[in-house]
Amino acid sequence: MRRFVAEKAKNLITKTRTTYSSPTSTYVLQRHTSSPLPSPSQSASVLRFLSTLHTAPSDSMASDYSSTPVTLNNVNPKVLKCEYAVRGEIVNLAQKLQQDLKENPGSHPFDEILYCNIGNPQSLAQQPITFFREVLALCDHPVILDKSETQGLFSADSIERAFQILDQIPGRATGAYSHSQGIKGLRDTIASGIEARDGFPADPNDIFLTDGASPAVHMMMQLLIGSENDGILCPIPQYPLYSASIALHGGTLVPYYLDEETGWGLEISELENQLKTAKSKGIKVRALVVINPGNPTGQVLAEANQRDIVEFCKKEGLVLLADEVYQENVYVPEKQFHSFKKIARSMGFGEKDISLVSFQSVSKGFYGECGKRGGYMEVTGFSPEIREQIYKVASVNLCSNISGQILASLVMSPPKVGDESYESFSAEKEAILSSLARRAKTLEDAFNSLEGITCNKAEGAMYLFPRINLPAKAIKAAEEAKTAPDAFYARRLLNATGIVVVPGSGFGQRPGTWHFRCTILPQEEKIPSIVSRLTDFHKQFMDEFRD
Amino acid sequence: MRRFVAEKAKNLITKTRTTYSSPTSTYVLQRHTSSPLPSPSQSASVLRFLSTLHTAPSDSMASDYSSTPVTLNNVNPKVLKCEYAVRGEIVNLAQKLQQDLKENPGSHPFDEILYCNIGNPQSLAQQPITFFREVLALCDHPVILDKSETQGLFSADSIERAFQILDQIPGRATGAYSHSQGIKGLRDTIASGIEARDGFPADPNDIFLTDGASPAVHMMMQLLIGSENDGILCPIPQYPLYSASIALHGGTLVPYYLDEETGWGLEISELENQLKTAKSKGIKVRALVVINPGNPTGQVLAEANQRDIVEFCKKEGLVLLADEVYQENVYVPEKQFHSFKKIARSMGFGEKDISLVSFQSVSKGFYGECGKRGGYMEVTGFSPEIREQIYKVASVNLCSNISGQILASLVMSPPKVGDESYESFSAEKEAILSSLARRAKTLEDAFNSLEGITCNKAEGAMYLFPRINLPAKAIKAAEEAKTAPDAFYARRLLNATGIVVVPGSGFGQRPGTWHFRCTILPQEEKIPSIVSRLTDFHKQFMDEFRD
Repeated sequence: MRRFVAEKAKNLITKTRTTYSSPTSTYVLQRHTSSPLPSPSQSASVLRFLSTLHTAPSDSMASDYSSTPVTLNNVNPKVLKCEYAVRGEIVNLAQKLQQDLKENPGSHPFDEILYCNIGNPQSLAQQPITFFREVLALCDHPVILDKSETQGLFSADSIERAFQILDQIPGRATGAYSHSQGIKGLRDTIASGIEARDGFPADPNDIFLTDGASPAVHMMMQLLIGSENDGILCPIPQYPLYSASIALHGGTLVPYYLDEETGWGLEISELENQLKTAKSKGIKVRALVVINPGNPTGQVLAEANQRDIVEFCKKEGLVLLADEVYQENVYVPEKQFHSFKKIARSMGFGEKDISLVSFQSVSKGFYGECGKRGGYMEVTGFSPEIREQIYKVASVNLCSNISGQILASLVMSPPKVGDESYESFSAEKEAILSSLARRAKTLEDAFNSLEGITCNKAEGAMYLFPRINLPAKAIKAAEEAKTAPDAFYARRLLNATGIVVVPGSGFGQRPGTWHFRCTILPQEEKIPSIVSRLTDFHKQFMDEFRD
Repeated sequence: MRRFVAEKAKNLITKTRTTYSSPTSTYVLQRHTSSPLPSPSQSASVLRFLSTLHTAPSDSMASDYSSTPVTLNNVNPKVLKCEYAVRGEIVNLAQKLQQDLKENPGSHPFDEILYCNIGNPQSLAQQPITFFREVLALCDHPVILDKSETQGLFSADSIERAFQILDQIPGRATGAYSHSQGIKGLRDTIASGIEARDGFPADPNDIFLTDGASPAVHMMMQLLIGSENDGILCPIPQYPLYSASIALHGGTLVPYYLDEETGWGLEISELENQLKTAKSKGIKVRALVVINPGNPTGQVLAEANQRDIVEFCKKEGLVLLADEVYQENVYVPEKQFHSFKKIARSMGFGEKDISLVSFQSVSKGFYGECGKRGGYMEVTGFSPEIREQIYKVASVNLCSNISGQILASLVMSPPKVGDESYESFSAEKEAILSSLARRAKTLEDAFNSLEGITCNKAEGAMYLFPRINLPAKAIKAAEEAKTAPDAFYARRLLNATGIVVVPGSGFGQRPGTWHFRCTILPQEEKIPSIVSRLTDFHKQFMDEFRD
């Protein structure tokens, strides 16, 4: 199977390279086949998420469009290389099955598709936080603010907050482009929220409001990557936004492996080794990506570990790109979220000592407002002339959406004791977070009870990343089906139960190991049936393939 | 002056290239200095908008940040090359002056800054369309839909529409990520709107909803540009999103000049010449950008001209990228907007004959909802495997914001005769569009009455692009002030009147000609005072510099 994948990737690369000289992809191939880790399987594994295997050219498909100018041979090869499994092949199959169920109820052994592939809480019936939505609605249609009926429909503090926010917007124009970093008053609020969280100052001029965290990540990759010689250290497993963004910007992903045995530990020695290997191949490593709490791995970093990471970035001259979008999703009492900025500042590193970007999003936390596309990055430790470049790139897209901006400010300054909404807000928040913790534990226990499956604790974030020890027979069957073993398992699971998970190969994993990512987001009352469906499926699968 | 600009650009390029081999920028220099048009001035002019002159490195600025890893020498050179004048130097000065006025009222010879630099209607007090905002507010906070007070606050058809839209969203979850192309039901509505507009079928699967038109343009550039050998034909003058996006993606802008003498006419012979020149230099031209109605130039293309353009793209195998965001902004009875898709279909070109992308935005039209970041592209004439690539790139950013998606559907299906809101909606729309037409005419006449200024008609869009015949003395003064002559004029204008316009060099212009872009968006009651301030300033300027 692995040979097949590598072969297919090679062919694709050769095919798509006919008119293009820069050997980015073959470079990746070479770099990894000569790496100290087991070579063929690693090259296969890395290629799984760096190359676009499921979009290999098919001449028959193209025939009708033979007179149109864009083909797989002349499209940007960086686009071909990019892969994003969270919405990949398995999800396409799920959408097909959902359509089937709609058109022919009873056509499958399940009556609904359960999307556990993506951290999208409200798609699985999580309700929005009332206060946040009240404020958004009032800012969308401010003319009702003064009407008497409004007081019957909206809480007093949401009305007050909407007035405050409108006063921060020049001309109260929620329909105008804002400053390209976002509305100044909202950035003030966010900076105060960061200060309250960290106990260290935050500067509103360091905040760049963005349409969710993804565009912010792209912006930083765009800044740092000038050619395939620019490398970005990324965890493996990683959230594939990073590999996709690096591929689109033509850089090199320098992998560092998280240690599954120690609960997805991040070892500095591994960072050092991978940095050294990359350097020896002529890669200039520019930045280190850390996802804390982890995605897809769910671990929460210990404070001492974070200090070592900061020290490492400082010593090696790396930008620390801290994905902190799950900062409010911590489920175990023994762990706490600490921002990397707080850690760096508490170590005595100031603005001019370390370059640090923290990404935050309104899509995660207890609010899960994915559809609003709000978020920000806090950019510290860059010289004024580089800041000017970041601002310029932000300004080309004018600004992020104002509702998302408002929501980002609300998330960082929710109702306080004494506010009319405080109690109901706290109850909504607590109900969601405690339920997420229970769901995480139930699913973790369920996975660990299955033959050949081991699953680390979900300390935080929204995911479990269980490891499957697949029998040789299953691996052989996957090879015959021309698919990766974990994708084979995920496809079988979907076809049997309607449960959608993402194969580990979409995130990267140690060669020869197989995983899948499953969110903890289905409604709590559905968890028992999910567990029993999973268990039944897995038993049958093992019965079929057990060696 | 021109020598100075070219020199400065050259130095910058050399400086930023120390660690980078691919000579994209110097290539542009060479290409243009050997072009058939007057060479030194053209290279200066093209460099004005292709290079980042105002961000030249300054060693003194960097000193404090000497231990941080990102510098102008190792940042992505494509980022350095990118320029976006609509929010550039002059706007930064305007923001500074605004701060001055706030802190020290009376410190300048004007009491407010008038932002005529950007098509941002609501920042200049244009009110949002009531029906649109009602629906958005209800979709943001659907729990009020069933409450009795709501009927006192919202129109009946806005409530009905909100219910309809919620029914189109899986699980009614306006806070969930949607399909990466946008919510299917909304795409159905948009496709129907396009069909009604054009009289030809539209497919909801061709619609990609985006956060405004800018990300859609980036997505297409990303698809088409693999290296600096990929060229994009762009009008000069152009909206600098195009030059910025081409620079960021490392491609080559192939300019075609609009003919100012014929009201910014688009001549096929000019396209042919520029295509030939580009080919002779080894550039593979991939696409033609057409902005209709024109930005910054305000012309509306004649139907016959559009047919010739379609024919040209078909013949030359170019993707036609049609920026149609001003489709509802046409102010003269003798002209009408026709989408390029309608033109192509009416010529008998079907889906498989021509690759055509139409960009639309909620930021323009009579609604001007810039802050909502809604928009879509209609993508036709691409093979399934290329469509898959476009979908994949869209999926990396998950989806565009749902409020923007909803608004895009509303814009394409406003209230109809018989709906409760129809009359008020029509009145709001008509008031805005007729006022814009009057403002355009008043400003156009005012410019044409000034010594040395000529201004084509604003047939559509939101801008005038007057040409200034600057006296030699003014050009010399600009040279001494180390700035482009049109930037010199714009800066003087701002300092004297508080009116912010964008120098023509930010859009590109025929070498040796000077322009500025001025929006027609200030409130109608302010237009007379703007005209008198402009007139007084210009007289004084000419008195100072007249040869």
